[in-house]
Amino acid sequence: MNALPALVDALPAGRVLTDPDVTESYARDQTFLRPGTPLCVVAAQTRDDVVTTLRWATEHRVPVVPRGAGTGLAGGATALDGCVTLSLARMTAIRELSPADEIAVAEPGVVTADLDRAAREHGLMYAPDPSSYEISTIGGNLATNAGGLRCVKYGVTRDSTLGLEVVLADGRVLNTGRRTIKGVTGYDLTGLFVGSEGTLGVITAATLRLRRAPALPPVTIAAEFPSLRAAGDAVAAIVAAGCRPSLLELMDRGTLKAIDDWKNIGLEDDVQAMLIAQAEGDAPGDASAMARLCEENGAGFVAVSSTPEETEELIGIRRLAYTAKERLGACLVEDVCVPRSALPDMISEIERAAARHDVLICTVAHAGDGNLHPVFIFDRGLPEPPENVWAAADEVFRAALDLGGTLTGEHGVGLLKRRWLGLESGPVTDEVQRGIKQVFDPLNILNPGKAI
Amino acid sequence: MNALPALVDALPAGRVLTDPDVTESYARDQTFLRPGTPLCVVAAQTRDDVVTTLRWATEHRVPVVPRGAGTGLAGGATALDGCVTLSLARMTAIRELSPADEIAVAEPGVVTADLDRAAREHGLMYAPDPSSYEISTIGGNLATNAGGLRCVKYGVTRDSTLGLEVVLADGRVLNTGRRTIKGVTGYDLTGLFVGSEGTLGVITAATLRLRRAPALPPVTIAAEFPSLRAAGDAVAAIVAAGCRPSLLELMDRGTLKAIDDWKNIGLEDDVQAMLIAQAEGDAPGDASAMARLCEENGAGFVAVSSTPEETEELIGIRRLAYTAKERLGACLVEDVCVPRSALPDMISEIERAAARHDVLICTVAHAGDGNLHPVFIFDRGLPEPPENVWAAADEVFRAALDLGGTLTGEHGVGLLKRRWLGLESGPVTDEVQRGIKQVFDPLNILNPGKAI
Repeated sequence: MNALPALVDALPAGRVLTDPDVTESYARDQTFLRPGTPLCVVAAQTRDDVVTTLRWATEHRVPVVPRGAGTGLAGGATALDGCVTLSLARMTAIRELSPADEIAVAEPGVVTADLDRAAREHGLMYAPDPSSYEISTIGGNLATNAGGLRCVKYGVTRDSTLGLEVVLADGRVLNTGRRTIKGVTGYDLTGLFVGSEGTLGVITAATLRLRRAPALPPVTIAAEFPSLRAAGDAVAAIVAAGCRPSLLELMDRGTLKAIDDWKNIGLEDDVQAMLIAQAEGDAPGDASAMARLCEENGAGFVAVSSTPEETEELIGIRRLAYTAKERLGACLVEDVCVPRSALPDMISEIERAAARHDVLICTVAHAGDGNLHPVFIFDRGLPEPPENVWAAADEVFRAALDLGGTLTGEHGVGLLKRRWLGLESGPVTDEVQRGIKQVFDPLNILNPGKAI
Repeated sequence: MNALPALVDALPAGRVLTDPDVTESYARDQTFLRPGTPLCVVAAQTRDDVVTTLRWATEHRVPVVPRGAGTGLAGGATALDGCVTLSLARMTAIRELSPADEIAVAEPGVVTADLDRAAREHGLMYAPDPSSYEISTIGGNLATNAGGLRCVKYGVTRDSTLGLEVVLADGRVLNTGRRTIKGVTGYDLTGLFVGSEGTLGVITAATLRLRRAPALPPVTIAAEFPSLRAAGDAVAAIVAAGCRPSLLELMDRGTLKAIDDWKNIGLEDDVQAMLIAQAEGDAPGDASAMARLCEENGAGFVAVSSTPEETEELIGIRRLAYTAKERLGACLVEDVCVPRSALPDMISEIERAAARHDVLICTVAHAGDGNLHPVFIFDRGLPEPPENVWAAADEVFRAALDLGGTLTGEHGVGLLKRRWLGLESGPVTDEVQRGIKQVFDPLNILNPGKAI
């Protein structure tokens, strides 16, 4: 393409990558989705690099796919034919960390766990912790409004975002939000960008709220159940009792079996589900209450940690879940979320869909939020999920919506879920969203065809 | 106006009010701002009434000023010449209250405290509690993204809003958000409407998150300080120590004196400020820690409640603040918010502005959020604040921005703060906001001239 030399000239040396082996490595996320062939990758190091790239893209009408670490599960960062993949992974500065105001200003390439560790040096933490938090970046977390394990207590990424520095499609820089905890000047542009999956602008810095890290170590419980439904009932009982877990994770037998086959955790034959819950030091009574509620709902065995090492051991089981499932085959990782009281029903629906379509579905759930990740396993040799997997997934999506839920709790729509969007949002929503997209990106160069 | 009979015909009997004495009573909020003369008031009772009114307004290009209880402090509901004032105060249904999912679906005319009371019957609470919560409505709270005393722990109105039913300017109905705690399908339209001050659509129902009400009564402390700055330092120390107050309110001597003159609370001569803090039953250690930090920062006397009656007595002092000040004269109630570490500096700036311009300023602050309400007192005989009050207010606004703060923490921009907007938000923000307004309200009939 003729325009490429102009981009190379406009950026500092080394920013534009065109070697096909290199660009290919930036083209996919964690989905099976087959990417297009990008024109090039821009590895931005500064906000000015982003401005330059977007000005050029606007001038030459080139689509731009912003990208963090590529850990997405919905195809939001999947390359399009002829696009510039704009990688923010090298913008890794924590520009500021203010313990007094409990805020940090981080660039999009900062690895989520690195920000958390930096905060902990001051007795603070960065709360959002998607399962990928050791490899995913703040920019990707913002793009998808990532959740995680702790969000049952501390909220999702949007709840920790106070302000943003954004480069718009035409290269203008927009500062949204503020450094204060509260503020109502103007429309909530900050919230609008969070979760917009790179379709409205490219975030080059975020003012993030830090939280006080718990002073005392948490108490962790792990409870084994004879049925998935019983575990779901225990979750509903825990929520109804007003416990405030800082983590409440559910794993079905398929998941546990995959972990056991890999790491031999001594899984008994009659265990159909496990619940892992954590109560922080400010709620010590909640751990024993949650253990009791598990027993009352049929748990056969309940382990309670008494040391940080035991806690790590119990949580470690949950952390193995995704990798263990990847050993079984290719994975379609789904992300429905239902009102919390509907969790047991949703679990039953997933089991029914699996049986009806003869699909292996292993489910983990951020149960305290009603957010389930049914993982549909299919033959690794296949380029994409076969018909019966899509049929089962379709039933799961529809069941979630019928139960008052949503297609995606924390992964985003990306490319993967666009074909179901119409089931959840009506024509007025679509029209309004297209109007907003038009305000920010009238030429439709930012991540076209994604999210909305 | 010729169009009015068509509106009267289209709505059920009794909805359109045209008696000038009646329409005048719907024309003002709590500010001194002189309203325009409305064409009529529509007292909507159903969503269909709102749809009918907005369709008619679009057809005839009539401006519409949505209105809740009229307790606003920024002129957001002030009538404009020739407008329809669309009152939502009669839409008072709590359509649903689900203890299992901890949500309520409320219409805009529900009084905030009524929703809270309905939730408490199920061991839950509706957290946002602006000082006006016994008279203000959910719709007004949503329009301004209202805060309150408890938001230091539980967040502002937006943090409790999961979804909305909105009637757009042309009468189309838009449903935003969801019933689930998490969800990332599409752009965050819910957050966009919250705080938009009636300029983007008219909210006819909200799905609101309820929280578990604390099981134990709170412990309340009241500390008296020899200087305002010392009290500000105590707040900074409390925040830095990681205490989690559920309420942290600061009052200056002017405020205390006004309360004492009215209710005789036995104010000593050397008390320049009082801090009222509350720790809930889940953080019992925080109350004693906060008392100790007050003493270390110079508090002369610290009262600690041990019964609910004593708590009510201490909190009662704070509740008297606004009414006590109204006894002194007309009030310009301001609402700056600064990063929490800047609270002592902001207090000093307010004192300097008061002295320099010879204005009586009485300040209360939601100190845990850095949100200050300096109240500028002026002669009740004047139709609006005199020059020296504006000059002092101007300095206070500029100081807040210089300290990294914002013009308004929870009241909104309305008409009152529009002339300072340019100091906080730049031309790109303005252009983007106008673009969003255009998407939702291309004819500019919804609360024109307000908020942005």
